[in-house]
Amino acid sequence: MQQLGMIGLGKMGANLALNLLDQGYSISAYDVDTSAIQQISQFGAKPYPSIEELIASLHPPRVIWMMVPAGNVTEKVIQQLTPLLNSGDIVIDGGNSFYKDSIERGLRLREAGITLLDVGTSGGISGAREGACFMIGGDNKVFTQIEPLFQCLAVTDGYHYAGESGSGHFLKMVHNGIEYGMMQAIAEGFEVLDKSDFSFNYEQVARVWSHGSVIRSWLMELTASAFAKDPELKKIRGVMQSSGEGLWTAQTALELKAVTPIITLSLMMRYRSLEEDTFPGKVVAALRNEFGGHNVTTHD
Amino acid sequence: MQQLGMIGLGKMGANLALNLLDQGYSISAYDVDTSAIQQISQFGAKPYPSIEELIASLHPPRVIWMMVPAGNVTEKVIQQLTPLLNSGDIVIDGGNSFYKDSIERGLRLREAGITLLDVGTSGGISGAREGACFMIGGDNKVFTQIEPLFQCLAVTDGYHYAGESGSGHFLKMVHNGIEYGMMQAIAEGFEVLDKSDFSFNYEQVARVWSHGSVIRSWLMELTASAFAKDPELKKIRGVMQSSGEGLWTAQTALELKAVTPIITLSLMMRYRSLEEDTFPGKVVAALRNEFGGHNVTTHD
Amino acid sequence: MQQLGMIGLGKMGANLALNLLDQGYSISAYDVDTSAIQQISQFGAKPYPSIEELIASLHPPRVIWMMVPAGNVTEKVIQQLTPLLNSGDIVIDGGNSFYKDSIERGLRLREAGITLLDVGTSGGISGAREGACFMIGGDNKVFTQIEPLFQCLAVTDGYHYAGESGSGHFLKMVHNGIEYGMMQAIAEGFEVLDKSDFSFNYEQVARVWSHGSVIRSWLMELTASAFAKDPELKKIRGVMQSSGEGLWTAQTALELKAVTPIITLSLMMRYRSLEEDTFPGKVVAALRNEFGGHNVTTHD
Amino acid sequence: MQQLGMIGLGKMGANLALNLLDQGYSISAYDVDTSAIQQISQFGAKPYPSIEELIASLHPPRVIWMMVPAGNVTEKVIQQLTPLLNSGDIVIDGGNSFYKDSIERGLRLREAGITLLDVGTSGGISGAREGACFMIGGDNKVFTQIEPLFQCLAVTDGYHYAGESGSGHFLKMVHNGIEYGMMQAIAEGFEVLDKSDFSFNYEQVARVWSHGSVIRSWLMELTASAFAKDPELKKIRGVMQSSGEGLWTAQTALELKAVTPIITLSLMMRYRSLEEDTFPGKVVAALRNEFGGHNVTTHD
Repeated sequence: MQQLGMIGLGKMGANLALNLLDQGYSISAYDVDTSAIQQISQFGAKPYPSIEELIASLHPPRVIWMMVPAGNVTEKVIQQLTPLLNSGDIVIDGGNSFYKDSIERGLRLREAGITLLDVGTSGGISGAREGACFMIGGDNKVFTQIEPLFQCLAVTDGYHYAGESGSGHFLKMVHNGIEYGMMQAIAEGFEVLDKSDFSFNYEQVARVWSHGSVIRSWLMELTASAFAKDPELKKIRGVMQSSGEGLWTAQTALELKAVTPIITLSLMMRYRSLEEDTFPGKVVAALRNEFGGHNVTTHD
Repeated sequence: MQQLGMIGLGKMGANLALNLLDQGYSISAYDVDTSAIQQISQFGAKPYPSIEELIASLHPPRVIWMMVPAGNVTEKVIQQLTPLLNSGDIVIDGGNSFYKDSIERGLRLREAGITLLDVGTSGGISGAREGACFMIGGDNKVFTQIEPLFQCLAVTDGYHYAGESGSGHFLKMVHNGIEYGMMQAIAEGFEVLDKSDFSFNYEQVARVWSHGSVIRSWLMELTASAFAKDPELKKIRGVMQSSGEGLWTAQTALELKAVTPIITLSLMMRYRSLEEDTFPGKVVAALRNEFGGHNVTTHD
Repeated sequence: MQQLGMIGLGKMGANLALNLLDQGYSISAYDVDTSAIQQISQFGAKPYPSIEELIASLHPPRVIWMMVPAGNVTEKVIQQLTPLLNSGDIVIDGGNSFYKDSIERGLRLREAGITLLDVGTSGGISGAREGACFMIGGDNKVFTQIEPLFQCLAVTDGYHYAGESGSGHFLKMVHNGIEYGMMQAIAEGFEVLDKSDFSFNYEQVARVWSHGSVIRSWLMELTASAFAKDPELKKIRGVMQSSGEGLWTAQTALELKAVTPIITLSLMMRYRSLEEDTFPGKVVAALRNEFGGHNVTTHD
Repeated sequence: MQQLGMIGLGKMGANLALNLLDQGYSISAYDVDTSAIQQISQFGAKPYPSIEELIASLHPPRVIWMMVPAGNVTEKVIQQLTPLLNSGDIVIDGGNSFYKDSIERGLRLREAGITLLDVGTSGGISGAREGACFMIGGDNKVFTQIEPLFQCLAVTDGYHYAGESGSGHFLKMVHNGIEYGMMQAIAEGFEVLDKSDFSFNYEQVARVWSHGSVIRSWLMELTASAFAKDPELKKIRGVMQSSGEGLWTAQTALELKAVTPIITLSLMMRYRSLEEDTFPGKVVAALRNEFGGHNVTTHD
């Protein structure tokens, strides 16, 4: 029986674990949140209260799937894991790490004989549970060695060995940049519908656009699903958070002199949505008042 | 047996006709290009050398599907048709007419007792042949009367009665605006890959993104298909034509004060691609030279 | 003594009139607001309670300067004026009319032997009072005939005969498009200062940038002036109104396939500032929730 | 007599030196290009063939003005200078260094008792010669000590002590970001003129906009000057180079979540101008061909 250690049992990690449990894997599970460990153990995963014990439960060569927040948390887990692992062990970072960090970590682990695969994971929660999309960077032989794992977790044709260390997370980063652009494009389309004199049924529009049109896509299906729950999205505010991958895409594009107005503007419209009032707006309003005596809107 | 007059036998019209012929329709066909009439007649359509004869071949109440270029051609055909039709006849404009024109034409035809349905058609050539997506505006009763026609031509759940006259073409216009944004988002993503130090296989990347990812979409599948034919698109130039619908979306958005940076910039990048050299570029280059003595690139 | 009829005594019209009075002109003045007529009469203008009486007060060939809101008001005044004027009379539309309207009105008045000069006026209120900038379209001979009027009203080198009818208002339209872009550029610069960790004195920054820098400009001087009154613009809201010229520039650019991302985005950021919450924002937030279970911000 | 060491005798450095020589300064001059040293010595500067000899020529506390390219060159000169200087000496980096580098270098030099002032310089070549604009960061007491130097070099009110180390170069960076936006706004305006049916005289237009208009600015005067030399800029190509400051502004804005579409797009249009053909353009063209059979433009 195949065994795998899963570190991080959030929305994505837990569902990947459930997916693997369904397919007969033995899963050693750990999370900083003990209730998350408890919960997954009810579905058959073996719960461990510490990373040390999780590692000890696995026979070398071990395969560890990390599904934890990018940045400090990922770094800390990598540092905890390093002394516990043996040469030949494999660590998969399935999270949204910045690709340059992954390259650096890959080199660091390689010195200890450990392989880091940087694996971008896409498909959302349902994808994690039922079949996702994986972009894989790192050592090709190690990838081949554990390819059956990705066959288990991915939809058909849903994984791709992208090349050297960092390439998996690079692809995921760019994937998310495209995602920002696509989402904003869809959103702007509905904005035009919303401001028009027609009375469209947004759910039905998103539904028909999901069937046979050029813009049919999973995001359009999700748009229909969202409107099905709240026909005019009256309950929610248009605050668009972002997790960092869109920013990295925009930054990387600037570095590379890659011209990406759509991806970058999509990100900026998200940042704009976080602000109730803006400083540039004040400056322009003040200037109009200065030269033309145009009225400004004041705080009451 | 159902009968329908098809005016316009280009890539879209011919394939819609073939689709209907497969499903047992009797098709009276006309095009300004007699070879196109000839060709479709080999598949069972009845060829007519003039619109007059085509109309005469149909029993009232007639259903005429127009699939001709938007603008002058559509207007001319409408004007030709009007005196030939009887009260109760139905004209479907399945092309990309501007929605305001469709509203006006609908009113004009209504005075003669004729119904105009403005029908946005999406799905490309393959969709026309095998099942497309339709957005339908105009009289609801008339739509219901000929709904089976759309059931024949559309993929499952692939047609939508959008409301009053003009709403079908409005939806199609906005659909194309979204399409521009989505295409540009995808294109920018590959631009970042292309400018990076990694060596990605673009076809395989587009392929994996088509399976299980958040950005899976028909456009991504087509991207894989395009790269399959020409792995780095070396044969073609990055000249991005546009047919008018993106422009109308951008113009309509401005009119409505709908904020659509992504759709509008996608259009502008297309216009930019039509120019080898630009006047704004010259102005900026000249200014840099003026204040800083920076070199300009001159024509040899 | 030179005489001129001034119709429209708002901020711009009244100050132009005062400017001309200072220079010995006889001004016949009219406004729909009788208090405005009253007020200007205290500075020596001759008050008339109706356009008819104003016209009657002037010796042919008359020169009428219209300084009224663009659109319906301008059109109405033109229609009122037409039957009252004689062949050889001159109407100056100094407002912000759309250039296509001005072309059409020019043709219409020409049939009655009347010349319309379309005159874009820039320089704000202080410019109107002390010396402004004029862009003049229409008949060249008529322009030459009244050129001394523009010498009176403009700063040195501050007027330009641009060419045929419509060219004056076209130039003013584009001038305002540039103005939108410049203002937004300045505003974004201060946004970066504002979000930085440094503690800048915005007034002093705008002041130093007004002296000797590459970006020195009247708008930067006005920025210093605005910050002098309210060091962090805390009293006003960032609501950016617009009067129409920026929209026309963006629309005209689209029509001409002129690539103008900066002017167009500047306009869109203004529209964005008019909205407290946005529909595209809701769509994106809802989508993130759909695929990733990301939290949305709800209305309380 | 005041003395100053000038390292870097390019367009900016040489003109600053000439400016100071006019005002009675004793200038010790060095450049890697010995002909530049030779040339400035003809105007009274003391030529030194090495930085060591230049430093030896000055009495402590020394004032050294560095006017060399940002990045590696600046770093190398700083490293050369450090062991040669004494506690109390002052180094002015008048170039376009990235502000974070300046902060780090300021800390490094401070350990040796040396003060680094980061001084953004604006005004172009003519400004350097006749009076420029300076944004100064670093120790306030040291600034006060050498304030007369800036009084000599700046136009009236043309220098500003911005605050702690790094703030001078931060201001200059943002200044250049605004400059990019302003230049692009002007350039887009002329693009609309150029694509219109009117026949404008661009020089005269830029000239009238420089007198009394809201958009009057040094950049508009330079625009008139450029058109005076080449009325339609036919001789030069629209290739828009950039020196790095606009990129840093865009990057810094992203880091700070400052919404700067105009500055960022201005930069991107510059990058776009460096490419004859584009990969995104190819992708979009290929996609249009895939779904709609639209023709692509191929390489011959």
